[in-house]
Amino acid sequence: MAEYFPGIPRIPFEGPGARNPLAFRHYDPSEVVDGRTMEQHLRFAVCYWHTFKFAGSDPFGLPTMERRYNGSGDPVRVAEETMVAAFELFSKLGVKFWCFHDSDIAPEAATLSETNANLDRIVALASKLQDDTGIRPLWGTANLFSNPRFMAGAATNPSPHVFAWAAAKVKKAMEVSKELGAAGYVFWGGREGYETLLNTDMKRETENLARFLRMAADYRREIGFDVPLYIEPKPKEPAKHQYDFDAATCHAFLQRHGLLGDFRLNIEVNHATLAGHDMLHELEYAFANDIFGSIDANRGDLLLGWDTDQFPSDVPLAALTMYSVLRGGGFTAGGLNFDARLRRQSVDPADLFHAHIGSMDAFARGLKIAARLRRDGILGGIVRERYAEWEGELGRRIESGACGFAELEAHVLRTGEPALRSGRQEMIENILNDYIHS
Amino acid sequence: MAEYFPGIPRIPFEGPGARNPLAFRHYDPSEVVDGRTMEQHLRFAVCYWHTFKFAGSDPFGLPTMERRYNGSGDPVRVAEETMVAAFELFSKLGVKFWCFHDSDIAPEAATLSETNANLDRIVALASKLQDDTGIRPLWGTANLFSNPRFMAGAATNPSPHVFAWAAAKVKKAMEVSKELGAAGYVFWGGREGYETLLNTDMKRETENLARFLRMAADYRREIGFDVPLYIEPKPKEPAKHQYDFDAATCHAFLQRHGLLGDFRLNIEVNHATLAGHDMLHELEYAFANDIFGSIDANRGDLLLGWDTDQFPSDVPLAALTMYSVLRGGGFTAGGLNFDARLRRQSVDPADLFHAHIGSMDAFARGLKIAARLRRDGILGGIVRERYAEWEGELGRRIESGACGFAELEAHVLRTGEPALRSGRQEMIENILNDYIHS
Amino acid sequence: MAEYFPGIPRIPFEGPGARNPLAFRHYDPSEVVDGRTMEQHLRFAVCYWHTFKFAGSDPFGLPTMERRYNGSGDPVRVAEETMVAAFELFSKLGVKFWCFHDSDIAPEAATLSETNANLDRIVALASKLQDDTGIRPLWGTANLFSNPRFMAGAATNPSPHVFAWAAAKVKKAMEVSKELGAAGYVFWGGREGYETLLNTDMKRETENLARFLRMAADYRREIGFDVPLYIEPKPKEPAKHQYDFDAATCHAFLQRHGLLGDFRLNIEVNHATLAGHDMLHELEYAFANDIFGSIDANRGDLLLGWDTDQFPSDVPLAALTMYSVLRGGGFTAGGLNFDARLRRQSVDPADLFHAHIGSMDAFARGLKIAARLRRDGILGGIVRERYAEWEGELGRRIESGACGFAELEAHVLRTGEPALRSGRQEMIENILNDYIHS
Amino acid sequence: MAEYFPGIPRIPFEGPGARNPLAFRHYDPSEVVDGRTMEQHLRFAVCYWHTFKFAGSDPFGLPTMERRYNGSGDPVRVAEETMVAAFELFSKLGVKFWCFHDSDIAPEAATLSETNANLDRIVALASKLQDDTGIRPLWGTANLFSNPRFMAGAATNPSPHVFAWAAAKVKKAMEVSKELGAAGYVFWGGREGYETLLNTDMKRETENLARFLRMAADYRREIGFDVPLYIEPKPKEPAKHQYDFDAATCHAFLQRHGLLGDFRLNIEVNHATLAGHDMLHELEYAFANDIFGSIDANRGDLLLGWDTDQFPSDVPLAALTMYSVLRGGGFTAGGLNFDARLRRQSVDPADLFHAHIGSMDAFARGLKIAARLRRDGILGGIVRERYAEWEGELGRRIESGACGFAELEAHVLRTGEPALRSGRQEMIENILNDYIHS
Repeated sequence: MAEYFPGIPRIPFEGPGARNPLAFRHYDPSEVVDGRTMEQHLRFAVCYWHTFKFAGSDPFGLPTMERRYNGSGDPVRVAEETMVAAFELFSKLGVKFWCFHDSDIAPEAATLSETNANLDRIVALASKLQDDTGIRPLWGTANLFSNPRFMAGAATNPSPHVFAWAAAKVKKAMEVSKELGAAGYVFWGGREGYETLLNTDMKRETENLARFLRMAADYRREIGFDVPLYIEPKPKEPAKHQYDFDAATCHAFLQRHGLLGDFRLNIEVNHATLAGHDMLHELEYAFANDIFGSIDANRGDLLLGWDTDQFPSDVPLAALTMYSVLRGGGFTAGGLNFDARLRRQSVDPADLFHAHIGSMDAFARGLKIAARLRRDGILGGIVRERYAEWEGELGRRIESGACGFAELEAHVLRTGEPALRSGRQEMIENILNDYIHS
Repeated sequence: MAEYFPGIPRIPFEGPGARNPLAFRHYDPSEVVDGRTMEQHLRFAVCYWHTFKFAGSDPFGLPTMERRYNGSGDPVRVAEETMVAAFELFSKLGVKFWCFHDSDIAPEAATLSETNANLDRIVALASKLQDDTGIRPLWGTANLFSNPRFMAGAATNPSPHVFAWAAAKVKKAMEVSKELGAAGYVFWGGREGYETLLNTDMKRETENLARFLRMAADYRREIGFDVPLYIEPKPKEPAKHQYDFDAATCHAFLQRHGLLGDFRLNIEVNHATLAGHDMLHELEYAFANDIFGSIDANRGDLLLGWDTDQFPSDVPLAALTMYSVLRGGGFTAGGLNFDARLRRQSVDPADLFHAHIGSMDAFARGLKIAARLRRDGILGGIVRERYAEWEGELGRRIESGACGFAELEAHVLRTGEPALRSGRQEMIENILNDYIHS
Repeated sequence: MAEYFPGIPRIPFEGPGARNPLAFRHYDPSEVVDGRTMEQHLRFAVCYWHTFKFAGSDPFGLPTMERRYNGSGDPVRVAEETMVAAFELFSKLGVKFWCFHDSDIAPEAATLSETNANLDRIVALASKLQDDTGIRPLWGTANLFSNPRFMAGAATNPSPHVFAWAAAKVKKAMEVSKELGAAGYVFWGGREGYETLLNTDMKRETENLARFLRMAADYRREIGFDVPLYIEPKPKEPAKHQYDFDAATCHAFLQRHGLLGDFRLNIEVNHATLAGHDMLHELEYAFANDIFGSIDANRGDLLLGWDTDQFPSDVPLAALTMYSVLRGGGFTAGGLNFDARLRRQSVDPADLFHAHIGSMDAFARGLKIAARLRRDGILGGIVRERYAEWEGELGRRIESGACGFAELEAHVLRTGEPALRSGRQEMIENILNDYIHS
Repeated sequence: MAEYFPGIPRIPFEGPGARNPLAFRHYDPSEVVDGRTMEQHLRFAVCYWHTFKFAGSDPFGLPTMERRYNGSGDPVRVAEETMVAAFELFSKLGVKFWCFHDSDIAPEAATLSETNANLDRIVALASKLQDDTGIRPLWGTANLFSNPRFMAGAATNPSPHVFAWAAAKVKKAMEVSKELGAAGYVFWGGREGYETLLNTDMKRETENLARFLRMAADYRREIGFDVPLYIEPKPKEPAKHQYDFDAATCHAFLQRHGLLGDFRLNIEVNHATLAGHDMLHELEYAFANDIFGSIDANRGDLLLGWDTDQFPSDVPLAALTMYSVLRGGGFTAGGLNFDARLRRQSVDPADLFHAHIGSMDAFARGLKIAARLRRDGILGGIVRERYAEWEGELGRRIESGACGFAELEAHVLRTGEPALRSGRQEMIENILNDYIHS
């Protein structure tokens, strides 16, 4: 079979001192860290849309990237070649997961039946390639935002006819995700929001969104697709405002509509920052409220106001992310998918490899740093000590619900002012630097 | 009694053509709009802290404003004079409400007992002035952020001793609020958040915050203080991150901890925008989820990243705010408090009056515009028509829960593509302009 | 000739009380304001790219808008039909100007020669339509950002070959702009910047940009194209950073490279705000430094981090813009071009008319407000009075350069502290509100 | 002499593996890197205002930090004790420079004469401490923003009387800076801007600012204070807008007013980001235009909209900063001053040491990384190769000014399309990571 990435070998692990840019310096899938292999910990997934379907266009410019698998004029043939190329890349990188939207992998046709037929054909091919390689989807999803019919929302559309379209697409996408053995299923509501409140019934729209998700949860059970469903928060873009703004907003929504049992979150770095949060905040929130699911690993540019979806080569961030994940017990069904795309000028196929290698290495470093932090009890110890007073008499009475305002007032009248204790932020940051940069 | 604002008369209503800067052009308290007087609709409240205690300092500069009531060297005497001056200003403006933190009105002393004694003395004076004028608090609150003891949080402090201090202060503040006949009680958690996640136990902190609010709700019942409790969302500042980030985050929190029945929201314009939302979004969210309470009326500068707390003289915003409030049934216990302060260079006492007059006039205009919009059914009609299909067969089946994915897929297979309908945003904005600027 | 906007009549002026949405309420081209007609003051120009070439796509979605003139499969035929449709819209709106990029009006072909031939053919058509209607370009420009060859910059490209391409395109665009009688020529450098400093030689790139602009100025003189050249500042998007960040940055660049005599600025509202400035700041800066040229009139959404290019229906902003323009002497060669596009859901051809009508009316209102403000000497008087001390002895000595630090120190030692004078911001805002909303 | 920081020894260098938090792991002042010692390269300066005068207050809270040198009730005595404590800290840290505002070191009194007398007294003390230790100011400056008289600007005030005050203060501050052997003098114009354009004459204000700076340059020559003058850009805060917005704006201003020969820039990280720029952008701009002077080293929080002035412990940023500085030839008169303050909860005196140690170590690491990058020619080589075509025939003709549009058009007609070359951003970032994290 012809190669789509000729000249690129299977990426070897060559260790920290390596000079070969097409080698891993830190990611050794079989290296055991804290009781599990790196591969088991990190569960990397390549994203089909960015890696294979993004060709360098932006709102001000045309595509810049030429790929061998895009050459044929026929959309279905392109889809097939792309799928073969994808598995070549997955295999050369040594990742075990991929993720996709329905319309990434198979072209939309004039009718739903034909579109679904295209999908079936490509899924059959993917299934075979999966069998050959042992690679499978981390999750699948349906694209409910590109087609004009979804311009005013999918499940939140002013027209129930469009709601039905969204239902039909998700139904099929769940079926093929199940067929491919996906470990999860994601909902990202890029059009579930509004452009202006002046023409919008927010209450009705969010209630319809809840109805839609309830149907999805029901259908998952109906077909025995026994994997987590994820909501992916994003505050805005493309919409002026999206209902799944951030982790807390999704949390409010899931509680309000009785959906907590069925959904967890797929948290993206650049979506977190667009919502005004550090990624670590969103992770903490999700773990603290038991709604963590999976991670869209990328990075943004905090001086830019849109989702740049850059590859996650930020080692300090990877370290703190993995610290949070390890402390939370590690991934179960979720993992790290690279929701990241090449810069528009990175037109060489080799750039796809540089990008993934750099990110995988960054997370491998991050994992090792996080494991050392945990082994040495550094951050955990600092926090424990800071809250130690809560283990005392007064703390226990408060946390057990044994007292109220009157007793606490009496306590203050009796004891006066507390001493001020340093939060020691600078010292902690120094310690962390020692771990990150050692 | 000596005047503190000599030369400023009671502000008269002189109507739209007036040249007198110290007159209302639009706010006529007795004018009936949509069945209620302007005074009943708008429920303006002057904020004690900004209007009387802010003297023009900023992080880079010392106070600029001299006030007659600040002259005496003795803190308690200053507090008394300030209270008298406050009622002079309230009366001259013709507002019926004020709002305050405990430490705005009475100086903190070396011990809680002495501080509470100071408070009792000033509250007695305020009570008398209230009796004389018929003015009362829209709400009271406790300052849990200025004193160093609260530097690491009040209810979310690493020390239960500080939790107790917060409890003691809120207990007293609720008591005096009740004594003064306040129509509500507010919680703003400026220190309930974190500076760095590295030393923070978010889960424990938010659970303790919930415990604290539960105690407050219990104590309200215990003392028969039968008014709404409000949480005021703010995303950040002073903290790096505050737990009451925005309306949705508070909603998640209240649900998570079973506090929905006891708390509603006090929504501030400039806090909304700091969280990345339009004020109207926060209002819609609160109404849609039945947690709306009251409004901190001000405006910010969207090109600045901090809370500028400018006076709310923005007429279009006032109009849409009042449209939202009217549609939601109007204020019950809540109202419009001016959480706004003079610019640092506005050093004349007369500037205090210009600021309030301009804001009251802006809301009076806004109310009249909103009432016309509702009378003519403009925005309501647009929205109703846009969602009309939901009243049809398919819409009803979906909204009643009668169907699932399979039926909806069948519908799509049968009916094909929906037509695209214009969202008409530009036309709606034109219509709105005609109402706002007519 | 077939109509492309059937059912839309020539838009009449019907005055403030009109109910017809397809009528002007305020824009009466022949109404005389402050000595000139509205048409002479406002010099509205329709932008070809947004109004005719934008079809509703966004980074997450496909086009939503169908237009009659796009139906033919042949690119040149589409270009011809679009041009005819454009003049139909210009005429129905009653605007006297349009503006365009080379590649908006004629399709790019495989070679420069063919592309230029396409351009010549369409320019001949436009020329005839111009003769029939008396409409002409406010300015022309070359698109140096969409084609992949410009991905790393045009005049700032790492390859001189691309620099040459930019030169060839601008040469032709200047020629056709001259042929069409354009009143100006614009440079917007969307790719003149960088994605990362790590691979960028900023000094060389900006020097090459200066060389390029010098060649353009020379060529303008060579062909006798006697109109202003404009640079249009924008801070970012599509690039991570653009060299023409804002008015001050362009001013620094023009001075540094001796280009001040040849270039003025074309200032865009939404670019101003993306750079962290109010539009009025950019206008003031340009007028204060005598580099003002023309205005890209639109509005952005300050809660979104990208250029939303919304239609400029903001009346208060239009009023202050026109106040600044009138005070600066009014437009000479420049004007107001609508660098604005429909919202993606505004799919009806009629929406194009609503959008332009609302914006033209907003500026007509703004012009009338501005003229009243100037007639009454309101803002001018406030400013004059505030700086009155500079007309005194000390002020004159300083401003004439007659004194230095020693004399000023002696003055302070002699006279002590100055009195603090109120900046009266709130009162001024109240007065402004009376003008804007009367 | 009593110690003000008892228990803190002189901070030793203990090398990378050290466990002692009060030791340097990377900063060894005598280590030679690229031909100079670390001390010579880095020229660290402690900032008097943050390190000694900041006590933990913020806009919502009172001071939290108690210091031994603040105990005495008398302002002059406090000033003296603080100065002694400062030299203790400087010495213990082993820094060779400090920097200050006039009003940091000596209390302002009722008249200028008395204030100056205070200053003379403290300067005499500082002078003696300097003699004892060999430490001297990196730069001095005058505080023209805290006193109410400057509320509407210093050199840009509507009153020439205030202009005179600013002149008197700068005159004295330059004199004492000279007396103390300062290596530079800084102007930061926190009030040189506006709160609202509605009452502002921007043209007059900026011209007066230029007059003021010209007087300062003249006075510097007059007294033979032969050091660089620096302007420190900041976009906003405290003002709504400051005239020294960023490096480019200062560059425009200096050119416009013929001040380029007298002023260079003091660039601050957190001011850069508040202006929407990466610190590296501001450095590149300054070097490219030969206006670089010195660095205010700190870091901000890009999710917060105000100047957080955090200690600069970010190693990757320090590395790229030092790379830029080394490539530009290293510091001459300038250096790295820590314009950074403790977090409000860092109440222990030891936290002052942790903060400085962590930052000095971060820059020491950064210096070593930068030197390796330069030694290996990594980034330089990438840039050189990317622009290599400019060394060819066409490039030389363009850069030498030998050709114009016609020749370039002919070139394109002859040669057609350029090839697209990858910008290789991801690969470069991977290489950089290997250097930063090795």
